[in-house]
Formats: sequence, structure tokens, C-alpha cells
Amino acid sequence: MAISENITRAIEELSQIFGDRLHTSQSVRSHHGQDESWHEGALPDAVLMAHETEDVVKAVKICATYQMPIVAFGAGSSVEGQVIPTQGGLCINFTEMNKVLEIRSEDFDVSVQPGVTRKQLNMELRHQGLMFPVDPGANATIGGMTATRASGTTSVRYGTMEDNVVSLTVVTADGRVIKTAQRARKSSAGYDLTHLFVGSEGTLGIITEITLRLYPIPEAISSAVASFPDMESAINAVITTLMYGVPIARIELLDGLTIEAVNTYLKSTHAVKPTLFLEFHGSEVSVKEQAETVGGICAEFDSADFIWKTLEEDRNALWEARHNGALAVMAMRPGAELLATDVCVPISRLAEMIEKSQQYLEDDGIYGPLMGHVGDGNFHFVIPVDRTNTEEFAKIKAFCARLAADAIAMDGTCTGEHGIGLGKQSLLTEELGECVDYMRLIKQSFDPNNIMNPGKIFSLTAS
Amino acid sequence: MAISENITRAIEELSQIFGDRLHTSQSVRSHHGQDESWHEGALPDAVLMAHETEDVVKAVKICATYQMPIVAFGAGSSVEGQVIPTQGGLCINFTEMNKVLEIRSEDFDVSVQPGVTRKQLNMELRHQGLMFPVDPGANATIGGMTATRASGTTSVRYGTMEDNVVSLTVVTADGRVIKTAQRARKSSAGYDLTHLFVGSEGTLGIITEITLRLYPIPEAISSAVASFPDMESAINAVITTLMYGVPIARIELLDGLTIEAVNTYLKSTHAVKPTLFLEFHGSEVSVKEQAETVGGICAEFDSADFIWKTLEEDRNALWEARHNGALAVMAMRPGAELLATDVCVPISRLAEMIEKSQQYLEDDGIYGPLMGHVGDGNFHFVIPVDRTNTEEFAKIKAFCARLAADAIAMDGTCTGEHGIGLGKQSLLTEELGECVDYMRLIKQSFDPNNIMNPGKIFSLTAS
Repeated sequence: MAISENITRAIEELSQIFGDRLHTSQSVRSHHGQDESWHEGALPDAVLMAHETEDVVKAVKICATYQMPIVAFGAGSSVEGQVIPTQGGLCINFTEMNKVLEIRSEDFDVSVQPGVTRKQLNMELRHQGLMFPVDPGANATIGGMTATRASGTTSVRYGTMEDNVVSLTVVTADGRVIKTAQRARKSSAGYDLTHLFVGSEGTLGIITEITLRLYPIPEAISSAVASFPDMESAINAVITTLMYGVPIARIELLDGLTIEAVNTYLKSTHAVKPTLFLEFHGSEVSVKEQAETVGGICAEFDSADFIWKTLEEDRNALWEARHNGALAVMAMRPGAELLATDVCVPISRLAEMIEKSQQYLEDDGIYGPLMGHVGDGNFHFVIPVDRTNTEEFAKIKAFCARLAADAIAMDGTCTGEHGIGLGKQSLLTEELGECVDYMRLIKQSFDPNNIMNPGKIFSLTAS
Repeated sequence: MAISENITRAIEELSQIFGDRLHTSQSVRSHHGQDESWHEGALPDAVLMAHETEDVVKAVKICATYQMPIVAFGAGSSVEGQVIPTQGGLCINFTEMNKVLEIRSEDFDVSVQPGVTRKQLNMELRHQGLMFPVDPGANATIGGMTATRASGTTSVRYGTMEDNVVSLTVVTADGRVIKTAQRARKSSAGYDLTHLFVGSEGTLGIITEITLRLYPIPEAISSAVASFPDMESAINAVITTLMYGVPIARIELLDGLTIEAVNTYLKSTHAVKPTLFLEFHGSEVSVKEQAETVGGICAEFDSADFIWKTLEEDRNALWEARHNGALAVMAMRPGAELLATDVCVPISRLAEMIEKSQQYLEDDGIYGPLMGHVGDGNFHFVIPVDRTNTEEFAKIKAFCARLAADAIAMDGTCTGEHGIGLGKQSLLTEELGECVDYMRLIKQSFDPNNIMNPGKIFSLTAS
């Protein structure tokens, strides 16, 4: 039992340094053994509440000595099992390391600790007229969003975490601290380590500080909702909007099933049809023009009800259905766990892709309402699952595999924004082939003892 | 002489495969021994005119066998010595591998071979109402722009190559072909290899196909020029414009010295003052609004002459000074070589940075006109150098080192868009410290025999 002896000694040393910030009780460990996905949980051996980069350095050095796995934990809102400590080890919780360190309004950037949530950040930015637009839905931490390369509803206009992380402070597997870039808006100085760590799901190092790009809060915001007779018309309206160069801020699609769930959940009476939720950002003049242009496009594609609102209260009411989509769907099957598909395809293939996969769902009798960031070609089926119903669960997993294979065949990806985690490792190889060998080379050279979130993204031995 | 024997045998094998597409004449080799920088040239042992990915695979496999260095060559417009084959070897010229492979207008992307130049690409895109906006000035190849992480005048609005490369096909050091990503607009599938190769200056593999993001040609474009009493006023006008959220497409600064050179070169009569060149993209309504807003801002910062044009011919005339800036400066010192500095700092420090460095130039008696992509905080002193004047040249190099050190101290970078190449290797370490060790780890694991553009970006042994 050399391994458990090692872990025991590591915990002793950690405990001496961190005192009551190191937790080993069953209840705290259970709290850190699961994310929001259907993946089976596992317990960490201990949980550290980190407060500063130096804490992480000390912890990593001890873990390196005893080859104890390390998993970073933020809001626990990952949906592919990223934070589940499948090999036990130390969970580093960042929720108490949540300071907005410096807002630099002239430079449109901010430095934050990883435990800052996106809502907290926007609250602190608001009085300076600034915002951080990336919005994955959940009130995730910036650390988690960075590690997963998150995106969401606003990426069609403002990009993903990929586009909005300026620089990272990272504690590497041997406990060194590196800062991956300066704060210049752009740089050609050597290999881009920043974007290597963005989306690395904690497997290459622990992110302890993030500098993000900011945007001025637009002078005017307006929102609109439009329903369509069918999916293809809705998507053609999206494509035409992009072709016209309308700088649309959000363009989201819900299908009839989602609308139905929302109507039940919110006691609303939306038309049970494919529906676009839109948001426009800009000057008063520009927002008006955008809404008029898009209103015209929607009418052209047979939308009968383009509703357009400018007051914040009215806008929120309009978007309520979108914001409650996933909750409403999960409420249809109380007690079920969440399985969210996440394919993203070139937009020219989107209508075909959605039609084909909805047909699969119908053929297989699977309940899977759709919601999507369609300006990016990314959509989710939100499927409530009961893993104890093994037959149904097998059918759902087969559907997911077929969906991803179709997306890959269309030059798309098996994950637009959720990441690979535990559930999509074979799909990663299906999608990127020998690239995975090069990812392994990087992992092995950065973390030769494989202590950084081991077992995530890919296994170290080629399959 | 084992090395030269190896090279001889490699050339024999290459020659058998490629026939008259392999060149070993002195004249062809000389043509591939230099870029547009002041760095001392060196001759490759042979030059291959590549036509397809498979050519590169065959060549790399032979070079791997005989440990022959490989340097990719496009337009030869690099300015930090990136294409100079300092250790000899095989130069792979991509100018005949220059097909636009597929334009996908609905998906706003295009796949091209590396030898396509940006002007050629935009000619081919134009009739579909699309454009590729990244504009580094030179008519560089897309392959070179990708490898150097180029940017230029439009990055304030459209981003750099970093933001606009979707996927790459790369021949790695052992002759394998990998495709780094699918065409989905976004993805969270594993480590971001695409952006690892962007900016890797040919040291990790040879790029043989690039998929780029495209944009609709804006409905309306207008341009403006405004001169200011001093540098600080000009930069404050830039910062205020960004604060207002004006989606400005270009915002370029020339100093009085550059204007003076341009006046001589073009026989024009521009006011010899710090001058902003601006471009607005959008709908008719939006472009008009943007120009009016920025006109107001410029007046607020004491610009006396905001000139605004919408017709293409008038716009081109207005921008002529900017486009001829570097040529005009070089014409002031016939026979001199080009040394262009390239620091980029957070915009809040830009005025201070420029003022300080202009003071250095004055103190040292160095002629260095300024032109800058000031919306990004990036600016160049274009310095004509005579390397045989060793005293002056030493002074210029000392100035460059001081400039970079100041930029780094301001949380900026020693290179906004030109790359590290030969000239900035010690600055890279100054800027990013131990990050360079991690870059080395990647290099060593991807290219263990160091045949891919050896000696560029960093040396393999830590200094």
C-alpha cells in the first residue's frame, strides 16, 4: 500500500502548513466529488481552500513529492466530469480565492483570482462602465471557464474564453510559477502558452490568476424574440443575419420541445415553435438599425411575430424563456441527471445536422429538447437521464456517439464549449487523430509524473 | 565532414524525387538567404519549390533522415530574420503552392495553401462579398503571416492572425501530417494546437494548409485624417474613441518625422504634426455616426483638421501617406537596411512610452520616424541602418534594447507583430522568464532532432 502511505504523508504535510484550511471530512470530500454532469463521482483524499498563489505552490510541491493527484475546483459547474477526482488526491478549492485584483479601465482589462464568478466580476465592473461578456449560463468561476475554454450566448459577437484571456499565472507540475504573457493587447513573443493552458482542463498546471479583456457596456441594448414555422427557416434567418454583417450580440435558438417545457415551468404561453432569442448592442442608432434589419430578415423567413424590446425589464421578461430553458427541461423529469450534448458544426451544415439528429431522437424515443448558440453553429440537446435505467441510458449514449460522429463528418467538433473531460476521450481521437499524440507529448513534458488532473482529456497511453 | 556528407546525400535523394523543382544554384540560393531585415543573410544548401503537402512530407522525411535543417519561405517579408537559414539546410519555397482551395461563404471561412498572398486572397474573395482583413502592410503570404502571428492596421477591430486562423494542416518533424482543428467556429476539444503553431516561426512544423475566418465586406467604409498639436492629444483621442465603444476598423498614428518623409517622397503638404489615420466600417448609418463621434472626440483633443471621406478614390488618397510611410522613410537614406522596432504596451502607458523613447532617439541623435497601430498600443520606429557604421549601429542596438526593456517594464511586449526570429531572443527571456523553458520542452518533444528552423526564437540550451 505504498500509494496510500504516500497520500497519508502528503496529507500530514499539507495539514501542518494549511491547518484548518485542509479538509478531510467525508462531508467536505463528498462536496468535491461531483460536477453537474451524469458522470459517476469520486472522492478526493483531501480538500484545500486556497487563498493565494503561494498556497498552490506549496501544495503542488508536496503533491509532486508524494505523486498525489491534484484537481482544481471552482463552482463545480463543469458538465463533462472535469472536476471529478477519479484517482483521488488533493482537490484545490478556489472559491475563497476570489478577488478582483485590478480593473484597468483605460486598458480594457482586469486581473482576477480564479474563484471570481462571472456574475461577481460583472457586478464589480459595472460602475466603471465595463463588462466581461462571456456567458456560459452557469455562474461559473473565471478559473473554470478558462480551464474549459468556455463560451456561451455572446460568443457570436465577443468570442470565447480563447479570445478574451490576455494572460495567465500558472503553477506548473513542479511548483514553479509562470506568467504566460504580458498585458499588451497583442504579441508575437514566442509560443502562445496562454492559449495552451486555456482549455487544458487542469491537466498542464493550476491557473492562479487570469487577466481578461473587457468591453465598454454598450450605450444601448435591445432584445427580440421571433418564432418560425420550422427549424430551417430559423437557421436561414441566422445565416442571413450574419451575411448582412449585423454585429449581433446574441442569437439563440430553442426548439418546440424546449418552449413546451418552459411554458410548463413558467406557466407562459409562447408559441410552441422553433424560436430565436436575439440581443443587439451598440449606439441607440445602431441598435435600432440592427433590430430593423433583423426584423426584416425574420419576416422574410416567415416569422410572424418579431417582438422587440429596449427597456431592461421588458428585455429580461422576453429572455426569461431562454434563461430558464435547461431548468425547465430538467423539471420535466424530477430526479434525473443532466446529459448535455455539445456538438458545433459549420453553420452551413447546421439545419441538416439538427434535422438529422432530431430524427434520431424521435426514432429512438429519447426526450431531448434543443437549445443552441446558433450563430456559432453550436447546439445542445439537454437530456435528463436516469442511469439506473440501463437500457434507456445505453440508447442515449449510442445517440450521443452517433451525433458526435455526424458532427465530425461535417467538419465540426464533438464539443463546442463543454470540453472533453471524462466522457469524450474516444471522440477526441476520432476528431483530431494524431493531434492527440502531440497533446500527449506536451502533457508528458509539462507533467512527467501525471499529477495534474490525471485521466482527463486523454489517457497517456495511445489507444 | 559527416555533416556535409549527410547534406550531399540528402540533396541527391531530394533531387531524384523533385527533379528541376530542387534548386542548388548560387543565384537561387542567394535569393532565399535574406528577408527584409538588417540581419546578416546565410545560404540554404538547396531550395525546393513545393506544390503540395505530399512534397513537404517527402522532403521532411529525407531531411529527418539526414538531420538537414528545414526553413519555410513565402514572400521573404519577415523583419526579424525568421527565414534566414543560419544553419544552411533545405529552404522550402511556397510561392508556387498558392491556391485558394475553397471559399465557403455561408461559413465565413476559406482554406488556402501557404503561398497565397493576402492581396491575392482578397482579390479572389471580393466577388463573393467577403474579405480577409488582417493587413500587415507587406503583401506577405498567409503561411508567413500565420507562422509569425502577424497583425497590422485592422487588428483593433478584426484581431490578429491569432484570432483569425481556424485550423492548420501541418507536416511535423517526422513527416506526419496533422490537421489541428475542424472548421467549427469554436471548440473545446483538447489542447489548442492551432494556436501553438500560429507564431511558432516554423520551429515546430511546416504549415501546408490554412483555414481562415472571413468577414462580409462592409456595406460602407469611410476614412478620416486628423492632425494634433502633440502626441499626447493624439493618443488621448484614441483612448477616448475606444472608451466610447466606437467599433473603429483602423486607427493609425504617424509622427511629424514620418509626415515630413512622406511629404518629401510624395511631394505632399501634410501638416508636420502627429497625425491619426482612421477607417470606419459598417452600415451607411453606422459609419456616419462613427465618423461624427470620432470627429467630435478629435476636436475635443485640439485637432484642427478632421478630414472625412467616403468615396473609395478619396479614401485612398487620404490614406496614401500612411501606406507610403515606411517607403518614404527608407528613401531618406538610400542604401540603408531596415530596422523596425515593434514594442506594444498597454494603451494607458502608450503616450508615456512614446515620449520617453522619442527622447532617447533625440539624445542619441538617431533618426527614427514613428508609425503605429495605436489602437492596440503597438508602434514602430522605422530606422534606416548602415551596419558598416559600427558606432552608429551599436548606438541603435542599445536604443532598441532600452526600448524593449521599458516596454516590458510597462507590462508590454518586445514584439507586437514581428516575432522573435534572430534578433530578440534575449528579450524573450527578459519578457517571459521561465515560460521559455516550457517553450523549449514543447520544441524538444515535437522536434527532437532540431531540424525545424533551428536557432530561431530561442536556443535549445537555457542561457
